[in-house]
Amino acid sequence: MFRTSVTVEWGDCDEAGIVFYPNYFYWFDCTFQRFLRSRGLSQRELKRRFDAVTPVVETGATFRGPARYDDNLEVEAAIALCGEKRFRMSYRLISGGALIVDGFEVRAWAVRGADGRMKGVPIDEEFRTAVMM
Amino acid sequence: MFRTSVTVEWGDCDEAGIVFYPNYFYWFDCTFQRFLRSRGLSQRELKRRFDAVTPVVETGATFRGPARYDDNLEVEAAIALCGEKRFRMSYRLISGGALIVDGFEVRAWAVRGADGRMKGVPIDEEFRTAVMM
Amino acid sequence: MFRTSVTVEWGDCDEAGIVFYPNYFYWFDCTFQRFLRSRGLSQRELKRRFDAVTPVVETGATFRGPARYDDNLEVEAAIALCGEKRFRMSYRLISGGALIVDGFEVRAWAVRGADGRMKGVPIDEEFRTAVMM
Amino acid sequence: MFRTSVTVEWGDCDEAGIVFYPNYFYWFDCTFQRFLRSRGLSQRELKRRFDAVTPVVETGATFRGPARYDDNLEVEAAIALCGEKRFRMSYRLISGGALIVDGFEVRAWAVRGADGRMKGVPIDEEFRTAVMM
Repeated sequence: MFRTSVTVEWGDCDEAGIVFYPNYFYWFDCTFQRFLRSRGLSQRELKRRFDAVTPVVETGATFRGPARYDDNLEVEAAIALCGEKRFRMSYRLISGGALIVDGFEVRAWAVRGADGRMKGVPIDEEFRTAVMM
Repeated sequence: MFRTSVTVEWGDCDEAGIVFYPNYFYWFDCTFQRFLRSRGLSQRELKRRFDAVTPVVETGATFRGPARYDDNLEVEAAIALCGEKRFRMSYRLISGGALIVDGFEVRAWAVRGADGRMKGVPIDEEFRTAVMM
Repeated sequence: MFRTSVTVEWGDCDEAGIVFYPNYFYWFDCTFQRFLRSRGLSQRELKRRFDAVTPVVETGATFRGPARYDDNLEVEAAIALCGEKRFRMSYRLISGGALIVDGFEVRAWAVRGADGRMKGVPIDEEFRTAVMM
Repeated sequence: MFRTSVTVEWGDCDEAGIVFYPNYFYWFDCTFQRFLRSRGLSQRELKRRFDAVTPVVETGATFRGPARYDDNLEVEAAIALCGEKRFRMSYRLISGGALIVDGFEVRAWAVRGADGRMKGVPIDEEFRTAVMM
């Protein structure tokens, strides 16, 4: 389990005084980046070492309660393989002890093919070891 | 079927040159707002007429292909009831004839209760008629 | 004078019900992109034809009145040279006939040097002709 | 001097691999919120205690160098009065010891008048003491 936190900033809320929901996906992505860093990785490292990117191919979220300006949200994230070419990041956002959002991203492992285009291929062994341990 | 379009702006893309995916949800929300306007409504009208808001309780998207800066995305949206207290907006984003994203929002119909808190209640008949016709 | 317009979307406003001000700069940038398109150009074209980028080196805005969800903002933009290596985009946002924001961007003309780094150089004649006419 | 830091996230950069500049203003605003918190305040507290808001009436920034994904930016902020109804927040963003952005916000002190509209008035003594000490 990887843990981090985010603070809801003024600009993250809408006129109704609650988080404008696309921002939750921004925080999912930020959490993924922080998770990578916690394993000594980053999008830049993935590019450099493997010439790989990890595009999101599917995502979703369920909103169970509102978050407001100044709230501190605890984030719990977990990774799981999802076939040999994809992995799934699961996220839970908790505020004051209550689950307010859970969601996920399915990300592909994609490398540049001979024709210059990115295509999904089996996840590199070294990456798998780094993130699954 | 409601139709609109969005242009992918410079700031909508990430370093990989493709749309940063949380922006798709911003466009889903914009499309919902435009759909409301096409029916003579808006978040403000909903508030004024019904003291109602329409919070997103669940959302998801599947990304089938990339969109890039300067692309014009055709958006198709449809609405469907989802029980008596919720409705579902479906979105399809099309670029150059190809489906690149499909997604949805499930929105609740919520009004202010006697205790001042918003709570889900059956969708107002007048709203249902305005959006479902 | 180049003219375009933007609609204030739900997600563009903050809890006080007015536009969260960084979004005005997003619209300045969008207007610049649309201006380029009106001259048959784009960031991509600048890259392709001139291997050039146009980074913002200075910007500012004065906020004269609020804009709210659903407002339609008329945008007026003008370009002026600013020395031989830079140009200035001026923006005026008008709502219901009243000026609500004016601002500017000073952009540099930068190309990749022999060492691979971008550096400011005199604006290409072809670009200058395309945008100043 | 108030100090904080931000990490440049993947979604904050554009296709050129540098921070999309409107995001710097988001960080200015975040820094202002954190500064308020460091003084036991927040937008919500200002509303509750003084029925006041602090709208930005003017802003500007100079970009001296690029920031990229994964960079940690040190932020230095200072406050100064600017007449009796306004104050000025100054921001300096530093990356790897080098100043990359400096900017400012001029904010008004506005309270709700008898007609329900917000208007600028002299800054409340209690607020001035809390932030200037």
